[in-house]
Amino acid sequence: MQTEVDRREFIRGAAATGIALAAGLHPKQATASQGQSSPGPEGSQAHDLNLPPMETVRVALIGVGARGSGHVRDLLRLDGVEIKAICDTDQSYANRAVARCRSAGRPEPDVYAKSASDYRRMLERDDIDVVVISTPWEWHVPMCVDTMNAGKHALIEVPAALTVEGCWELVDAAESNQRYCMMLENVCYGREELLVLNMCRQGVFGELLHGEAAYIHDLRWQMHEIVRGTGSWRTLQYTMRNGNLYPTHGLGPICQYMNINRGDRLDFMSSVSSPSMARAEYAAENFPHNSIRRKHKFVCGDINTSIARTVNGKTMMIQWDEQLPRPYTRHNLIQGTKGVWGGFPNRIVVEGDSRSTERWEQGAELNRWFERYEHPLWTKIGEEARRVGGHGGMDFVMWWRLIYCLRNGIPLDQDVYDAAVWSVVTPLSEWSVANRGQSIDFPDFTRGKWKTMKPLEI
Amino acid sequence: MQTEVDRREFIRGAAATGIALAAGLHPKQATASQGQSSPGPEGSQAHDLNLPPMETVRVALIGVGARGSGHVRDLLRLDGVEIKAICDTDQSYANRAVARCRSAGRPEPDVYAKSASDYRRMLERDDIDVVVISTPWEWHVPMCVDTMNAGKHALIEVPAALTVEGCWELVDAAESNQRYCMMLENVCYGREELLVLNMCRQGVFGELLHGEAAYIHDLRWQMHEIVRGTGSWRTLQYTMRNGNLYPTHGLGPICQYMNINRGDRLDFMSSVSSPSMARAEYAAENFPHNSIRRKHKFVCGDINTSIARTVNGKTMMIQWDEQLPRPYTRHNLIQGTKGVWGGFPNRIVVEGDSRSTERWEQGAELNRWFERYEHPLWTKIGEEARRVGGHGGMDFVMWWRLIYCLRNGIPLDQDVYDAAVWSVVTPLSEWSVANRGQSIDFPDFTRGKWKTMKPLEI
Repeated sequence: MQTEVDRREFIRGAAATGIALAAGLHPKQATASQGQSSPGPEGSQAHDLNLPPMETVRVALIGVGARGSGHVRDLLRLDGVEIKAICDTDQSYANRAVARCRSAGRPEPDVYAKSASDYRRMLERDDIDVVVISTPWEWHVPMCVDTMNAGKHALIEVPAALTVEGCWELVDAAESNQRYCMMLENVCYGREELLVLNMCRQGVFGELLHGEAAYIHDLRWQMHEIVRGTGSWRTLQYTMRNGNLYPTHGLGPICQYMNINRGDRLDFMSSVSSPSMARAEYAAENFPHNSIRRKHKFVCGDINTSIARTVNGKTMMIQWDEQLPRPYTRHNLIQGTKGVWGGFPNRIVVEGDSRSTERWEQGAELNRWFERYEHPLWTKIGEEARRVGGHGGMDFVMWWRLIYCLRNGIPLDQDVYDAAVWSVVTPLSEWSVANRGQSIDFPDFTRGKWKTMKPLEI
Repeated sequence: MQTEVDRREFIRGAAATGIALAAGLHPKQATASQGQSSPGPEGSQAHDLNLPPMETVRVALIGVGARGSGHVRDLLRLDGVEIKAICDTDQSYANRAVARCRSAGRPEPDVYAKSASDYRRMLERDDIDVVVISTPWEWHVPMCVDTMNAGKHALIEVPAALTVEGCWELVDAAESNQRYCMMLENVCYGREELLVLNMCRQGVFGELLHGEAAYIHDLRWQMHEIVRGTGSWRTLQYTMRNGNLYPTHGLGPICQYMNINRGDRLDFMSSVSSPSMARAEYAAENFPHNSIRRKHKFVCGDINTSIARTVNGKTMMIQWDEQLPRPYTRHNLIQGTKGVWGGFPNRIVVEGDSRSTERWEQGAELNRWFERYEHPLWTKIGEEARRVGGHGGMDFVMWWRLIYCLRNGIPLDQDVYDAAVWSVVTPLSEWSVANRGQSIDFPDFTRGKWKTMKPLEI
């Protein structure tokens, strides 16, 4: 999804954001000045939609590049799914997706590749139930809103939105149209994450007190994608914003452990960013003098660290770093009164069960925990998921579960409020970084419904 | 150092602090209202005292309990040291220290054990050069100030002070008396910490961007010390303050890596605390119904997480947790543009040197780094330090270096400004926790001298 049109529109939008932030303007104020969220119909909610089962889930995809093509691959492995249409401004990507359907013995989907707005023509069809959106970030909100306004469910890649206002637009559209708007936070379906969720539900760690989430992943190599590919548009993000630009992979599971939006709610957060040096250094060392990569002025701090507290007083530490030389981690740490789990590497201590609380149980010692608390989803389809692959199988488990829910009339595991609050960490962190680490309140996207929304059943 | 007198005085002082915080009063405002710091004589400084070498270092100790007795043990191993006097309100502790001197074949020190204020009588002696203070926290500032006003150098246990005002009192006393006020941050002399300091100095990690410090150490067992011992007074701290109560062990080394107060300065910080549950649960499970431990109302969050930024834009994450079931860690993580070191377990990645930046070098792989960058202090006395023990030898290295500096007229490695800024994290975190994680500025205890103070030579 990358044309000159797109890029110009994109840069305009992002530049505006940049200006608001440079002015130290509170994103919520910015939102207000652009028109505050209008609540949906009285008592409307979008977390527990009571919709009829679908015998066949008719799917359209917008964006079948690096990420979207993986979704096509996973969807073709499932029964009760029909891929009706493919939209991508890159005709070759669209053709590749169609060929994949053909070689899987499925009917060929129609292609929409005329322009960046051709997806709207696709949304006029009446034979599509859900739309999978895997496009550059700034397109997520408009495409989601158009999708729901067209009466279709939106399955959106992470992050769902880049601004506070964008998050509210998703909430309003989901509530007023009574459509699902699920962010495809695949990490919530990882084997370890579902194991830990299961252990939290069963009280293994006692009362949960603190969580740590991160997306620390050296992505400097993406800067070599200049004309097409994720790097071609994602690299520009680092020149326009300074904060946590990719919070949801680490944060989603922690929020599910802590029942955020389901009995508790994120209350406020503070954030600091380090200087921005790594990408300019990398460009100077890896690109020729005339390269556009050496002309960028990177403004996003190389590592961002945020702290947050919930209304019930629980705390979180959230980190982001996509450019420093360091092994990958999402932290995935959850600390309770009786024990703690940490990821990367996986490790655990449970008082009264671990031989000692002074040393971590690791490696083979973890087998007993998987035997006791493996999540039912992984017990059922884990073997197939591992064989299929895709981020260790989490992608397949996500799609299997998602299609299962749609075909059985079960509400999806992640609702629009999750998408909004997990994504809003980006603009809130930008504001706090620009304002000497002052804390900033989270909007209550549930409008009070978090007090009664029930914990995830998964 | 624990008598009923002490405890009553202590509780009065601490309660006052509690009230100020409950009122959301900015500690600096509280300070101001109690009389702002009065700068020392024009251009006075206390970081680079030009004092004559001491052939023999004549030492007195106030407090020879759990910690102070260890200092006696280490001092008796060094040449050019004379222990002249021992002060402790617990006569048996004092006698034990005297016996230790005797059995080491050294002259017996005089004992001052009449009351909590008997140390003042000791300070009147003219044959004492330095005073080592290892007493309950609330006594650190008054004893340090009295010591320096009596013309003696103060070596103070961590934390040096509990309030912003207390930190200023130390700075003013050190500057006006031109005496050393060094906090005995032994962790700065650990083998790994000095190795990493050496690597930072030599640019192995490139430009430093971010550090992580912690004191995560399950000390619930100290609650069983009710009449005497550290637990008898330290446990009460958790009933009166909510923040990071013990920041310096993790923070000291990170600040030395980053040249804090020596070209850079801590600018502001934000802090959040989790709910306080672990100690009440522990008391209910481990103490009889009538025990005072079950009557305490613990208010300090079980885990505190803070973020800070320096004037040069570098960031830190600082954590504290003394009550949750979890293995010990100080984090000791320092991230630069070219590489990163992390502790607990020790691990490293250096771009262009490590085989891959996608996996940590650990265990035996670290040997090559110790061979290349072992700190000269550990090369020289590491073997003896390991044999002697005491927190893995760091205590011995600290005392060896400290006495070496005094006997050679070399300024001590940690000055009063370090003691103040490392300790002030406690009251600043308390204020931020009490004010929804709002950020709060660090006082500049150097009064601008940080711009010209040279990096540590060690």
